[in-house]
Amino acid sequence: MADGPATRAWREVERDGERDAVAIEEPLEIRVDGRPLSVTMRTPGHDEELALGFLFGEGLIDGPRAAGLTEDFAANAIEVPGPLLRDPGERRFYTTSSCGVCGKGALEEVAVASAPLGPGPIVDRALLAALPGRLEQPTFELTGGVHATGLFDPAGRLLVAREDVGRHNAMDKVVGRALLDGLVPLADGILCVSGRLSFELVQKAAVAGTPILVGVGAPSSLAIELAADRGMTLAGFTRRGHTNVYTAPERVHD
Amino acid sequence: MADGPATRAWREVERDGERDAVAIEEPLEIRVDGRPLSVTMRTPGHDEELALGFLFGEGLIDGPRAAGLTEDFAANAIEVPGPLLRDPGERRFYTTSSCGVCGKGALEEVAVASAPLGPGPIVDRALLAALPGRLEQPTFELTGGVHATGLFDPAGRLLVAREDVGRHNAMDKVVGRALLDGLVPLADGILCVSGRLSFELVQKAAVAGTPILVGVGAPSSLAIELAADRGMTLAGFTRRGHTNVYTAPERVHD
Repeated sequence: MADGPATRAWREVERDGERDAVAIEEPLEIRVDGRPLSVTMRTPGHDEELALGFLFGEGLIDGPRAAGLTEDFAANAIEVPGPLLRDPGERRFYTTSSCGVCGKGALEEVAVASAPLGPGPIVDRALLAALPGRLEQPTFELTGGVHATGLFDPAGRLLVAREDVGRHNAMDKVVGRALLDGLVPLADGILCVSGRLSFELVQKAAVAGTPILVGVGAPSSLAIELAADRGMTLAGFTRRGHTNVYTAPERVHD
Repeated sequence: MADGPATRAWREVERDGERDAVAIEEPLEIRVDGRPLSVTMRTPGHDEELALGFLFGEGLIDGPRAAGLTEDFAANAIEVPGPLLRDPGERRFYTTSSCGVCGKGALEEVAVASAPLGPGPIVDRALLAALPGRLEQPTFELTGGVHATGLFDPAGRLLVAREDVGRHNAMDKVVGRALLDGLVPLADGILCVSGRLSFELVQKAAVAGTPILVGVGAPSSLAIELAADRGMTLAGFTRRGHTNVYTAPERVHD
């Protein structure tokens, strides 16, 4: 899968008279059948995965498609062939003009429909606690400026890891890769993110069918609420050999 | 300024058989003259500030307005009186359907117009390095799950601090508060954020006229590019008594 020439995730800058490496942030426009659908600020590279993972997480596609960067690479645009499963205007994206959060519960109003999760694996708490240490983060090591998401098997082996200045993008790229590899739904998968656990990350993991989501950082209230609703095991504050399990603890052995 | 009853920023959950405090994340719909404009996932409280700061950062308003939550608080919606300075469709928001990042430089394409920054203060590097320690973060101390933004004067005194599960929201709330207090443009202000320095945060600071932006985390390439273009002093990795200055170092004494 070619990503075009713009796959370097970092570049050098001068600061305080020295050279320093910073993570690259650039816009990417996602087009479906030539129609602009969305713009995200992302780290270049794995853009097809990002586009497919994003569209899948929004419930707009249900499998991989032959997406590709436009020939004019400076355009920072990726084309995805349609049709979509529904009109993207039906659900509001973030910070957009079509929505209604009016009088209904927050969860019902913002959540994308997703199938119930399967039973998933039973794992040791110590295995979950070890996952952040197994995330491969080469760009973070150089720049300190990107988030990471990793997909692990039930034995805690890393299957794929992606980094991005946007933490949602890192997960979209992993889900997009899994889609391309025929691994979705991730019925035995464990996703691990380098940052906090927001509603949106739980939603993306749920749509991908992931039974266990682990984060280095804190979960939000709505992340916990959605995970409980979907039966997902949500583990936060995964640091220094410990992890806190907030929902569906039946998948975790002490 | 009343924020309605939903101003508690955290709540208790059960995890691993114990009580734990987590940051609240809920959607907020911003309406202008009754028309839904945007939805953001935010921590309740200071919603008027959030709405005004957001609209100001997008170039849609140029001063404070009498915004207020709708009477049905469960609706999670805030009303802002119009008119707006321009059609919000002219510039795409993130992840929305109207945009074109086609063949132009990324910066020109995504940046909101902002007036040139003034000369601003000259400060000691040690003062910048001390700012994260002066950020008031009561919800972070309880939950570990929110970002913070603080506005400081040239002597390093904290004028206002806000926390939110979304780091963009924390800055919108500070700018909104400053708008309501008649402090914008922040010609002598220093903004300090608890996380990384993205393009979007630099843009919000620039539109508010801030000459100096400090972050605990790393800057992205496009954040540096925009700060350099606007003549903003951008300082990152502000930790343990040190800070790295990436742009406009003439405002910083060693």
